[in-house]
Amino acid sequence: MFIYHTIAEIREYVREARSKGHVIGLAPTMGYLHEGHLELMRRAKERCDTVIVSIFVNPTQFGPGEDLDRYPRDLERDARLAEEVGVDAIFNPSAGEMYPAGYCTYVDVEGVTSILCGMSRPGHFRGVTTVVIKLFNIVKPDAAFFGQKDAQQALVIKRMTADLNLDLEVITLPTVREADGLAMSSRNIYLDPVQREAALVLNRSLLKGREAFLAGERDPSKIINLVAGMIRGEALAEIDYVEIYSHPDLQAVARIRGPALLAMAVKIGRTRLIDNILLEV
Amino acid sequence: MFIYHTIAEIREYVREARSKGHVIGLAPTMGYLHEGHLELMRRAKERCDTVIVSIFVNPTQFGPGEDLDRYPRDLERDARLAEEVGVDAIFNPSAGEMYPAGYCTYVDVEGVTSILCGMSRPGHFRGVTTVVIKLFNIVKPDAAFFGQKDAQQALVIKRMTADLNLDLEVITLPTVREADGLAMSSRNIYLDPVQREAALVLNRSLLKGREAFLAGERDPSKIINLVAGMIRGEALAEIDYVEIYSHPDLQAVARIRGPALLAMAVKIGRTRLIDNILLEV
Repeated sequence: MFIYHTIAEIREYVREARSKGHVIGLAPTMGYLHEGHLELMRRAKERCDTVIVSIFVNPTQFGPGEDLDRYPRDLERDARLAEEVGVDAIFNPSAGEMYPAGYCTYVDVEGVTSILCGMSRPGHFRGVTTVVIKLFNIVKPDAAFFGQKDAQQALVIKRMTADLNLDLEVITLPTVREADGLAMSSRNIYLDPVQREAALVLNRSLLKGREAFLAGERDPSKIINLVAGMIRGEALAEIDYVEIYSHPDLQAVARIRGPALLAMAVKIGRTRLIDNILLEV
Repeated sequence: MFIYHTIAEIREYVREARSKGHVIGLAPTMGYLHEGHLELMRRAKERCDTVIVSIFVNPTQFGPGEDLDRYPRDLERDARLAEEVGVDAIFNPSAGEMYPAGYCTYVDVEGVTSILCGMSRPGHFRGVTTVVIKLFNIVKPDAAFFGQKDAQQALVIKRMTADLNLDLEVITLPTVREADGLAMSSRNIYLDPVQREAALVLNRSLLKGREAFLAGERDPSKIINLVAGMIRGEALAEIDYVEIYSHPDLQAVARIRGPALLAMAVKIGRTRLIDNILLEV
């Protein structure tokens, strides 16, 4: 497996793979890989001849006061894990390589970025779409792989890809969870054992919400109240948002009539965790 | 020569040209072609095997109250002219093909879009960069051709291309002028004979400005005053802006120490015309 730090190197690598007729897959990550990432890579490997993983803690998607500086990083460990699942190359640029002096171009997806995480993290999705289009343009993959844990991110990227006529397939893969239900996240490392236990309320309350939905409840506010009430019962948890939107178009709904996304962001201590579940019959 | 109206058709055409190993050139236009456009196409034809011209009056780059509705259109004439200079295909999509229902993604180049035409036409460059990245992604040209008459546009597109790692060359070609010096523009059709005569003040005053520069003047405000004074002497002309910025980075300068762009927008009746000249020794 190769590790490249410059755009010129990864471009040359892709050019060579392409010249052999390879189908190219890209999994964009911020590193500190967990089983959720590795599952993306395995699925990518099934569909593509050459799989490239980008590892880049993208500064433009972090707001002031967020965890950019303490975001966990371990390239050596990441490289070992990626190689084990058959990744062909890692692209690990510096911030200066991606955003050289004078950089001033940004991509905005409007509408669907103003709700959910876009509301709590203004500018976050602008940073995400900007770095993702750059990665797409650098690697020119046939397919790119994202996790359903970041449901809104995946939908925003699909929207951008369609709107800007990018010629690739965006594939979303199911959330991978720990045995006890906690959604895999690089940020789980921030949790101490007591917080780790408290964090189970995210998945538990999502399941409770889906249970109500499957029992026939179609009023989003009733499901939200049920879920939020359960989270409030956990002393260490502080709700950022619990919301239901139609899926995949992320529109507010007065009643659930088609597939819907029950999504939440909850702070456990200083750690902000997100999770979601699809409501569909 | 082929004329395509859908993204699927032009993509298929490009795929075939690409499979023959062709180098592909794109000249994005809003149609109503004049000699300036045709010169872009001739130069494109010299450098590329397949030359595609897009003809699309892009609604997102027009502001409220601007001339979107009356912008001149004549596809039949355009097709004849393009074919004469050896263009291989025209891409002429509808607004709905480019911006289908639900469209919500935009590209912003900051900084260099807030001055000059960006000041008088807020949102204009956002529309330009958005449609141009779409055209780039649809056609995937090796080179794209723009005119120096729209100097700021060309610089904004170069900035976007570099920042977003688009893999193509952006080529700017000199302004083409009528025999009497008026810069070619589709909007010249709006001018009646008296206005047409008055419009010569743009080029005349630019030449006057360069004359002062070549005679040693390096104070931008002195050159601007000279040029603006000359334009004010023309009763039918109303200045939108006359400015000098460094070239190509478009920074304000207290003294001219390197290449600089003397640029202007002037209204002759209802018609807003732009022109510019490079100041360099």
